[in-house]
Amino acid sequence: MTTPSRRDLANAIRFLAIDAVQAANSGHPGMPMGMADIAEVLWNDYLSHNPNNPKWFNRDRFILSNGHGSMLQYALLHLAGYDLSIDDLRMFRQLESRTPGHPENFMTPGVETTTGPLGQGIANAVGMALAEKLLAQRFNRPELEVVDHRTWVFLGDGCLMEGISHEAASLAGTWGLNKLIAFWDDNHISIDGNTDGWFTDNTPARFEAYGWNVVRGVDGHDPDEIKTAIETALKSTDKPTLICCRTTIGFGSPAKAGKESSHGAPLGKDEVVATRAALNWPHAEFEIPQAIRDGWRAGNAGLVREDQWNTLFDRYAAQYPQLADELIRRSRAQLPEGFVADADAYIAKLQADGPVVASRKASQMAIEAFAPLLPELVGGSADLAHSNLTLWKGSKSVASDDPDANYIYFGVREFAMTAISNGLNLHGGFIPYDATFLVFSDYARNAVRMSALMGAQAIHVYTHDSIGLGEDGPTHQPVEHLASLRYIPDNDVWRPCDAVESAVSWRAAIQRHDGPSCLVFSRQNLAHQPRSAQQVHDIARGGYVLKDSVGTPEIILIATGSEVSLAMQAAEQLGDRVRVVSMPSTDVFDRQDRAYREAVLPNAVRKRVAIEAGVSDYWRKYVGLDGAVIGIDSFGASAPIEQVMPFFGFTVEKVVEAAAAL
Amino acid sequence: MTTPSRRDLANAIRFLAIDAVQAANSGHPGMPMGMADIAEVLWNDYLSHNPNNPKWFNRDRFILSNGHGSMLQYALLHLAGYDLSIDDLRMFRQLESRTPGHPENFMTPGVETTTGPLGQGIANAVGMALAEKLLAQRFNRPELEVVDHRTWVFLGDGCLMEGISHEAASLAGTWGLNKLIAFWDDNHISIDGNTDGWFTDNTPARFEAYGWNVVRGVDGHDPDEIKTAIETALKSTDKPTLICCRTTIGFGSPAKAGKESSHGAPLGKDEVVATRAALNWPHAEFEIPQAIRDGWRAGNAGLVREDQWNTLFDRYAAQYPQLADELIRRSRAQLPEGFVADADAYIAKLQADGPVVASRKASQMAIEAFAPLLPELVGGSADLAHSNLTLWKGSKSVASDDPDANYIYFGVREFAMTAISNGLNLHGGFIPYDATFLVFSDYARNAVRMSALMGAQAIHVYTHDSIGLGEDGPTHQPVEHLASLRYIPDNDVWRPCDAVESAVSWRAAIQRHDGPSCLVFSRQNLAHQPRSAQQVHDIARGGYVLKDSVGTPEIILIATGSEVSLAMQAAEQLGDRVRVVSMPSTDVFDRQDRAYREAVLPNAVRKRVAIEAGVSDYWRKYVGLDGAVIGIDSFGASAPIEQVMPFFGFTVEKVVEAAAAL
Repeated sequence: MTTPSRRDLANAIRFLAIDAVQAANSGHPGMPMGMADIAEVLWNDYLSHNPNNPKWFNRDRFILSNGHGSMLQYALLHLAGYDLSIDDLRMFRQLESRTPGHPENFMTPGVETTTGPLGQGIANAVGMALAEKLLAQRFNRPELEVVDHRTWVFLGDGCLMEGISHEAASLAGTWGLNKLIAFWDDNHISIDGNTDGWFTDNTPARFEAYGWNVVRGVDGHDPDEIKTAIETALKSTDKPTLICCRTTIGFGSPAKAGKESSHGAPLGKDEVVATRAALNWPHAEFEIPQAIRDGWRAGNAGLVREDQWNTLFDRYAAQYPQLADELIRRSRAQLPEGFVADADAYIAKLQADGPVVASRKASQMAIEAFAPLLPELVGGSADLAHSNLTLWKGSKSVASDDPDANYIYFGVREFAMTAISNGLNLHGGFIPYDATFLVFSDYARNAVRMSALMGAQAIHVYTHDSIGLGEDGPTHQPVEHLASLRYIPDNDVWRPCDAVESAVSWRAAIQRHDGPSCLVFSRQNLAHQPRSAQQVHDIARGGYVLKDSVGTPEIILIATGSEVSLAMQAAEQLGDRVRVVSMPSTDVFDRQDRAYREAVLPNAVRKRVAIEAGVSDYWRKYVGLDGAVIGIDSFGASAPIEQVMPFFGFTVEKVVEAAAAL
Repeated sequence: MTTPSRRDLANAIRFLAIDAVQAANSGHPGMPMGMADIAEVLWNDYLSHNPNNPKWFNRDRFILSNGHGSMLQYALLHLAGYDLSIDDLRMFRQLESRTPGHPENFMTPGVETTTGPLGQGIANAVGMALAEKLLAQRFNRPELEVVDHRTWVFLGDGCLMEGISHEAASLAGTWGLNKLIAFWDDNHISIDGNTDGWFTDNTPARFEAYGWNVVRGVDGHDPDEIKTAIETALKSTDKPTLICCRTTIGFGSPAKAGKESSHGAPLGKDEVVATRAALNWPHAEFEIPQAIRDGWRAGNAGLVREDQWNTLFDRYAAQYPQLADELIRRSRAQLPEGFVADADAYIAKLQADGPVVASRKASQMAIEAFAPLLPELVGGSADLAHSNLTLWKGSKSVASDDPDANYIYFGVREFAMTAISNGLNLHGGFIPYDATFLVFSDYARNAVRMSALMGAQAIHVYTHDSIGLGEDGPTHQPVEHLASLRYIPDNDVWRPCDAVESAVSWRAAIQRHDGPSCLVFSRQNLAHQPRSAQQVHDIARGGYVLKDSVGTPEIILIATGSEVSLAMQAAEQLGDRVRVVSMPSTDVFDRQDRAYREAVLPNAVRKRVAIEAGVSDYWRKYVGLDGAVIGIDSFGASAPIEQVMPFFGFTVEKVVEAAAAL
């Protein structure tokens, strides 16, 4: 082979994808075959990265929003020299391999975010581009632009049909994220066939309506046209760019190109042979000729970039040592020295002061206390700032170019908000928080799941946590939400009972670097609970004895949030053989060692009552078949809290009755 | 008072809203004050309805997508003569009143759909407009257009920011729903303040990109401009229309007009007085002068429409008696005579035949069997027709003008799909079904909740029901979803174990007129289970003894779906004192009388093992603290099913072990 053509280089992607899908007998060859030429140009001529250090902080981010085309990304990583071998590719879609069915950020070096749930990749990318913008504002100095990279996105028709693409693109336009460049794989095919029947948007006009720079009508199989389009995008100073690439799904397959049959199934042995012939690719399965490998390495413009950047950063650190230290600290997701001690002191003072406030107010007080210590804390609300109480004195809109910009007016966009939080954290340098009413966590639900799956530290603040919100009625009153959020694996849900537990939940969420926390707060005021220092300490264990019985307990009352004070009042009436357990986080409590859990909930004590203004069955895990639950298993009702809580049985009398009946 | 002006008529809305919010000390006056003039023109000059019969089938549908402005709708219903008294308005936001905080279709005559969760109202409306189009195609005959009405929508900036507005508007454009007319309350204010900071879309251009007819720049306080805009909309023959109305939120309030302070809180006593003066409204609280009342009744163009329609329908019925019967039957949500007998016969034959198929295939077989009997069955999939298996031989796209059009290519739009299903059912005449992978029920979650809250009969088909889907990996493998869907109040979830249970679940969903059903099916083949006729009958009770013990059971194995066959195999090994309970629907089982439940799960038998490829804690409600659960409490993994199921412990051996260890 002579010097390989660009098409030859791209064909290497195509056949790695074809062969891997065929070997797995499962997967999606059509998209990698369709987008290979675009990927080849982007990766060889533009992408700034370092395959030897996938975590280089100033790398360009590459996001495959149409994640079913995972083999495109694995082929690129392999060809560009990442630690992903041909044997890894052979193990595509096998148990514990580094090449799972969809790209997983925790499985594969060079994968920035987990994609597959359509539309979320582009929203993650908006978060990453926002992260870059905010870090650049804070840290860059003249001729010392230590934060300066692009975020590149591949997306398909499916991503563009999803509602989240609207929310995310709208915000990217509003924020003018000019370093965000997306390639639309405009192939006119989705799983059900030709998209004429269900996707007739004028997508370029739609994105222009969001304030994007749009490059229309690019032949996605012509490297020159792709280059010209990218050059146009690079010139944009105030708008994100959508490059509309007309492509053929399954490009090169004589029988399946341009057809949905190439989308989600192996081509089949005969068609693989035919495609090899059609694309003049005589090489064996998983075989990449050395000339092609050399072509990829030679073209890889990003290989040496990190060295140049390190030199730049050394100069920066010499001139701005404090800023450099902060950037390093934040890039490593380390908390400032002393944060925990400061937080503990704040919590101890709260316990002593005993404010009676709504836990949403306590949340704002915690933000007010902690945020000045944490420049990495960035967040906001989905148009409910004054209800969620997410603003604090130091809040400055990220739409500005203020170096301390840290507050995000998300608008009414819960799903993109949450996926953008994930992107901010995955980029590095930020602990993001977002907020809405608990009931509208539904709108964002799969992005919360993705926080957990990816191990992203995103803090989801949900206020108006029960029917106790009152007059807005059942559409706004969560019932099943606490239980449903707790069931998301690796998601920590907190529902604090007073200002002290609220501050502890914030501290826990800030310290939890490997996953998300949902902090659930009340609209209404909550009583302050007395505690010893040991009890204050034990809040962090998720559940603890708030009021103990004299001797072995006869009855245990377990409660969360606003219902803890009901439990405490009931305990007064029930006498001194009653223990009250406050359980702000079942997720955290369940992770404690057996001895601690047994100490709080002795197995032998079966007279147990759980009280929570949410679905009752969730609590059977603690009270079993023989205990009682005061919960709510219907929708709520519109009425003032003084009417609605007793109407649904949340009274001291009902708790006493239930306990006495055991 | 002389003849009231249009502004006077509109002010009646304003002050009913102002006074009711003030009396409740809670609510949203700003939107009703801003949209009153638009509402006055629409209701008095155009809306075709009958206040004496809110259920008149051919009425125009009016949808308040920005449902927080509920007092606008209550004021309109009251003034137009619906059964909603001034005393009802005085009870705004009080317990069990007919004027709850947000409009509830089950509480108030004339409220077509429950709104409040933003963006869903417009999607419901798209479903209603589609219903009208499909019914017109099927039933109308020359000069006998018995189905001929419009769907009018009010929506705000919040609705337009939500992703679902993108999905719904895109489909409305594709389908050319020209009888759908939406008024955008373009007031530049959302809860956080002036929308410049977070909502910079060019909305008219965006909607033109969806193929809508857009009327720009209408002064929403000028009745003539509003009329002209509506006349333009009425002329559209192939496109839905968006009328962009520039309005002032809180119009008339000297201190709060144009400000977010009027959005979600009472104006305050002094400002109410000031607003009365500013708008020249000297009348007392909740007082509407007779001249204004007369003005509303005189203007109400729809009052006599039903009589004319009844005459038309009589002529139609004389000429097309069968069609008329079908339309009446469907409008009353009655199943065809003989449906249940036919379904029972199909199910009995399935039990005898014993096909071994994936339950998603069994679902398709059930559709194939039942759909020919049910012209009201309309549905489709979010671009997964060949995975969800939702197509059947009689499927014809609703994008066509075929009289039998019944299949919806929703594209990748799970949330709008589900809200459109709700709209189709609420309109009347249809039993809708929709479909996606179970994991992506997350994207639609709040619309599923709304199906349940509204009592809408929508059938949500969710395939690929567990980690058993294999290679696509954790983003596509549901874990917490079964439990989370079951926790939605009034939602029936079914997870059948074979083709027979699958058909029974479809029969149940079709018979359940007052709420939604989620039918959850496997990707993989499932064994057929032997049953007596009584057992076949008992499937409909949600849980039943599939294999009984000899004598009192020592151990009870409880399982659903694909895990039932594991339980049956384990029971073989565990001996004849083991009972196996198949539990396809815990929701339905929990509604059975105590005696039946006790007969299936005797309280005294506490050695219980539950087996389901989902979160384990859910099953504590049946196995208590002392039983065992074989479940999955982590995310899944990408691998073929033969590897992934044993990897996570779903083997006969593990079940036997767990049972033996009790």
